[in-house]
Amino acid sequence: MKIGILTGGGDCPGLNAVIRAVVRKGIFTYGDEFIGFLEGWRGLIENMSTPVDLDVVGGILPRGGTILRTSRTNPSKRPDGIDRCLATLEKNQIDSLIAIGGDDTLSVAQKLYERGVKVVGVPKTIDNDLGGTDYTFGFDTACNIVCEALDRVHTTAEAHNRVMVVEVMGRDAGWIALYSGIAGGADVILIPERPFDVDKVAESIRQRHERGRYFSIVVVAEGAKFSSAEPGQGAPVLQDMGKDEFGHVKLGGIANILAREIEKRTGYETRAVVLGHIQRGGSPSAFDRVLATRYGLGAIDMVHRGDFGCMAALRANKIVSIRLVEAISRNRTVDDEMIQLIDGLMPRAEERATVPR
Amino acid sequence: MKIGILTGGGDCPGLNAVIRAVVRKGIFTYGDEFIGFLEGWRGLIENMSTPVDLDVVGGILPRGGTILRTSRTNPSKRPDGIDRCLATLEKNQIDSLIAIGGDDTLSVAQKLYERGVKVVGVPKTIDNDLGGTDYTFGFDTACNIVCEALDRVHTTAEAHNRVMVVEVMGRDAGWIALYSGIAGGADVILIPERPFDVDKVAESIRQRHERGRYFSIVVVAEGAKFSSAEPGQGAPVLQDMGKDEFGHVKLGGIANILAREIEKRTGYETRAVVLGHIQRGGSPSAFDRVLATRYGLGAIDMVHRGDFGCMAALRANKIVSIRLVEAISRNRTVDDEMIQLIDGLMPRAEERATVPR
Amino acid sequence: MKIGILTGGGDCPGLNAVIRAVVRKGIFTYGDEFIGFLEGWRGLIENMSTPVDLDVVGGILPRGGTILRTSRTNPSKRPDGIDRCLATLEKNQIDSLIAIGGDDTLSVAQKLYERGVKVVGVPKTIDNDLGGTDYTFGFDTACNIVCEALDRVHTTAEAHNRVMVVEVMGRDAGWIALYSGIAGGADVILIPERPFDVDKVAESIRQRHERGRYFSIVVVAEGAKFSSAEPGQGAPVLQDMGKDEFGHVKLGGIANILAREIEKRTGYETRAVVLGHIQRGGSPSAFDRVLATRYGLGAIDMVHRGDFGCMAALRANKIVSIRLVEAISRNRTVDDEMIQLIDGLMPRAEERATVPR
Amino acid sequence: MKIGILTGGGDCPGLNAVIRAVVRKGIFTYGDEFIGFLEGWRGLIENMSTPVDLDVVGGILPRGGTILRTSRTNPSKRPDGIDRCLATLEKNQIDSLIAIGGDDTLSVAQKLYERGVKVVGVPKTIDNDLGGTDYTFGFDTACNIVCEALDRVHTTAEAHNRVMVVEVMGRDAGWIALYSGIAGGADVILIPERPFDVDKVAESIRQRHERGRYFSIVVVAEGAKFSSAEPGQGAPVLQDMGKDEFGHVKLGGIANILAREIEKRTGYETRAVVLGHIQRGGSPSAFDRVLATRYGLGAIDMVHRGDFGCMAALRANKIVSIRLVEAISRNRTVDDEMIQLIDGLMPRAEERATVPR
Repeated sequence: MKIGILTGGGDCPGLNAVIRAVVRKGIFTYGDEFIGFLEGWRGLIENMSTPVDLDVVGGILPRGGTILRTSRTNPSKRPDGIDRCLATLEKNQIDSLIAIGGDDTLSVAQKLYERGVKVVGVPKTIDNDLGGTDYTFGFDTACNIVCEALDRVHTTAEAHNRVMVVEVMGRDAGWIALYSGIAGGADVILIPERPFDVDKVAESIRQRHERGRYFSIVVVAEGAKFSSAEPGQGAPVLQDMGKDEFGHVKLGGIANILAREIEKRTGYETRAVVLGHIQRGGSPSAFDRVLATRYGLGAIDMVHRGDFGCMAALRANKIVSIRLVEAISRNRTVDDEMIQLIDGLMPRAEERATVPR
Repeated sequence: MKIGILTGGGDCPGLNAVIRAVVRKGIFTYGDEFIGFLEGWRGLIENMSTPVDLDVVGGILPRGGTILRTSRTNPSKRPDGIDRCLATLEKNQIDSLIAIGGDDTLSVAQKLYERGVKVVGVPKTIDNDLGGTDYTFGFDTACNIVCEALDRVHTTAEAHNRVMVVEVMGRDAGWIALYSGIAGGADVILIPERPFDVDKVAESIRQRHERGRYFSIVVVAEGAKFSSAEPGQGAPVLQDMGKDEFGHVKLGGIANILAREIEKRTGYETRAVVLGHIQRGGSPSAFDRVLATRYGLGAIDMVHRGDFGCMAALRANKIVSIRLVEAISRNRTVDDEMIQLIDGLMPRAEERATVPR
Repeated sequence: MKIGILTGGGDCPGLNAVIRAVVRKGIFTYGDEFIGFLEGWRGLIENMSTPVDLDVVGGILPRGGTILRTSRTNPSKRPDGIDRCLATLEKNQIDSLIAIGGDDTLSVAQKLYERGVKVVGVPKTIDNDLGGTDYTFGFDTACNIVCEALDRVHTTAEAHNRVMVVEVMGRDAGWIALYSGIAGGADVILIPERPFDVDKVAESIRQRHERGRYFSIVVVAEGAKFSSAEPGQGAPVLQDMGKDEFGHVKLGGIANILAREIEKRTGYETRAVVLGHIQRGGSPSAFDRVLATRYGLGAIDMVHRGDFGCMAALRANKIVSIRLVEAISRNRTVDDEMIQLIDGLMPRAEERATVPR
Repeated sequence: MKIGILTGGGDCPGLNAVIRAVVRKGIFTYGDEFIGFLEGWRGLIENMSTPVDLDVVGGILPRGGTILRTSRTNPSKRPDGIDRCLATLEKNQIDSLIAIGGDDTLSVAQKLYERGVKVVGVPKTIDNDLGGTDYTFGFDTACNIVCEALDRVHTTAEAHNRVMVVEVMGRDAGWIALYSGIAGGADVILIPERPFDVDKVAESIRQRHERGRYFSIVVVAEGAKFSSAEPGQGAPVLQDMGKDEFGHVKLGGIANILAREIEKRTGYETRAVVLGHIQRGGSPSAFDRVLATRYGLGAIDMVHRGDFGCMAALRANKIVSIRLVEAISRNRTVDDEMIQLIDGLMPRAEERATVPR
């Protein structure tokens, strides 16, 4: 079988491991032939491709990024986009297509499926917030990177009696903040799922100080929100910091605002750290390499079972096949059970910084 | 409530995270008081203990080992052992006891429970082979360490056209070999669950060589067994290498024997690496810190729910309570589904090194 | 002898290793007694101290930060500061004092020496820019952290065809940018010692693109300066980005401005990463642990040789004693020989981004 | 100019960084053309080569091993070896040759130089024991790996009240043991330069135990020797452990023997760890990448200055050119000044384990 493969959306540790697993099992077990389309859907729109064989996937397992490169190009957003994809598939005589990506990438996969393409999806989101699957690869690596950064920041906070506010990825879901915050021993963890009151954050830090702990670590997801309960008081206006006309560089992000507000309220020296792009690069953890490999093996099996319009998913530690429509229709946010982990580790409720839902 | 806590058996990254979670939630949520018994059950036999409060657990989350130290002392193996444990508990006015350990430690916990002690267990095995629970902490850290070692060894193997045989932990179950072997891109993975034929191992390496790959990585669990299918041929006698009267230092272990046999059969330069104790020390991974924390939070909740004679367990990503007897009665070995992962990544079956069950 | 010890200025991996070496050799070889003053000179002004013995320094070698904590408090900046320090020393019957710190800390040490205190200095600057000594501890650790971050960022840059601008420490000297930039394979390295022309930076990236390399890594020291050769063209005004009234959080720093200007000029997607505080925390590298230990051993020997008013220094790989005045009088910037390393790795001179001095 | 390049002897982190620096500066600055000979001198004997250009060296900086592969083949050891090398150089019209390797590799380079070949050497030894140069690349990486392993082993030793004996590289010189032992906080460091008395080693551990430290870490270089001062007592016979007919796998090495002897004498549980091949693989540290890059830049400059029969060397932090004959004629062992570092950190002399020279 002649199979196309592509990676779309933001890069994520483990993409190469998926590609390698697909190609090895495809060749060794099924005798397949592979064409890699470059830079996500752009490769299908512009017919940019390269053959992928055992040599090409040799040695890529430990490498971050993706040998097929990636982009956020979305064919649905241009009139002839889907048609050009179909034309490219036909021109290359592709029997079926494996698309590795997040919500956006997989929604295009679904559109192609509806136009008759034999497509199989592999979920990818470093934020771990894709519906229908328990864990996505890249998330564990990101948590390890953040956790290591928190260990580093701890020593500085302790040496200087400082509050350190560390901003991590997570626009819509707080998985990275929650996991790495617990792993890194954060004293306050702020996630999009639970708006926070900055007065209470400051108060909990002050009380910690009074218990003899002269430093604190605050982990905040980039998408965390101030509670609007007490306007003008608990909720500083985000525009305060001056907007950046540049757009993609986040100036005056949540960490900087929060650091300013905590320092104002407590008088303790407070610093912000924005981890940014280092969270998604580099060599995947062992867990992510195994998980990505399992997704890849699952996907190539799905192709040969004819499970098209479907995505490989992890459920209760097994790889299963679910409908693409099921996966892309909903986001997976942090549930109450996990939020209670944070509360379980912290002083009693009245001192807690976040507002229970 | 006055609660005793101890850690028994081999050390494991995450033990301190369990202790910290138990103590924080115990104090913050329930107002408990904690006594740490030192060096596992030895601390109960000899009444060696220390108070454990918030200060004691401050900063221990990222540290390997256990602040309570550990030992393999088993009170069941001396006539008055259990009685002395009971006496110590009474002397210290302990209301309930949290025991963190593996099979051996938990079987003592069960005995004490049968004698009326309000005991709760937390599972610990770096080998991930304890029945009743999906994952144990320490395993992920060990896999990361092995995976990193395999990455290192790869560069040497490739530079020198060598076969490298890497021995990892796993006496009865091949979880570490399987996970880290897949994560590290091993070409052959040998586990206790599936005896292997050394001729076939050599043959698969030779065929790999003929495909233009002049190096190979073999990962072997310390408990992997030669298939006895063809005595005198596939199965070299382990005693060949000379026994060590010293006992605890493994000389002529499986890696060394296997390296010798592969070199004999293929003529390729072959080297052995025995990873040994570095697999279980050091700072836990983010995953293990979260998992250990969840076990700790679960255990202290169980104490206050009165779930005695039980153990915290992870099932389908939730912490639940199971009977101690259930956990200690069976070992969890690598199942066929996971073994098929290895096969999925390798050349076709007739070249495979291991004997299907 | 009764010896005081303190750490001042910003924290730096290796401080604990210095303290440990001083205390071990002091106790084992000389039979000294140690008093640690807390939070740098603040501890002397406010008489905050703690005894430091073998137990206190047990296990601190691998830890970042400083067990004595630190601050930027400078007694010279308050009228009675120096007098209060002298009073504290007398009150504690301190025979001699070991001060570990940078320019600022050591200039106070010199003032106390001029007032009769038997003081010995140990140089500390993560930027490696202190005069009189070849290497300072902490620098190697910082370079490893930055280098690892560059490795991560590389995979993202490559996967997305992006330019990544990474801002690292170095207000006055570009040592971290130079070393970690070379180690991390940066395509452009910008340091305070050599002002740069942003048009040439953009041009060199464009030419790289034309040679078929669709991504680029720019490492920029926080103190790097735009060349003012062509006002209005090569030199964007820093105030453009909007000043932050908060002060200590650097918004619109050099990385963000540079990213914007490169994207404007090249049209390539460009992102900024500001590494910030993670560069100075965490466990020291082996090199820094050995170097810090050597400084500590040197300092305690100097105390017992009577080398007061002096600082331990590393020269041609030997620890020697130099006058404090010599060290604090001059800054050590990147010299031409090291700058030529960058040029040696890059395309021919006419394409280079930086302006030769 | 058409330049040959090869890597010989054991692999070492930083080899690829040398190759990259040579090729980049050669092409960018001098317009050179490069031929890589494969697998060290074997490539010259058997005329195995590959062109090396900018694409080939793209992305190799962070990778361990060597893209040119390596071997211990020595042309001097076969009658026609040198002649065949000369023939290959002529056949490929090589103007000059850069040989990267240790003693053995460079002695062949010297022989070729004596036969008229324009050869330049780059020193390589992970043991840091090559004469004429202050530091060699790979050594710092090895020390970091060992240091990290010691950190791990510490937590286990402490948790179990154990003595851990860790064997590291160093047949003739104890640099790795000394540096990583100091960095890892070892309690006893045993190096080839100073034979040791096992009774004194055991005694120093016992005294440490009596000071309340119930665990100890012993670092031993593979080439460390028992003192023969008291035969039958201090010096166990190495053959005790049973020889391995296999040869290349070290069974009953120094660590295992030492562990047995310490346990016998102290009664403390003692374990051995042999780090082996993981010490030389993997990604080089920042320090080694910079150092290797400097050697590479130095070597290509030497070619164009006509410094043949010479080797790039690091002296007082500068790259200089020295005669090959000077470098290969002597070994650089640990000097007394460095040995005194160990003594400075340990209890008083009468308890020390090693015999002063």
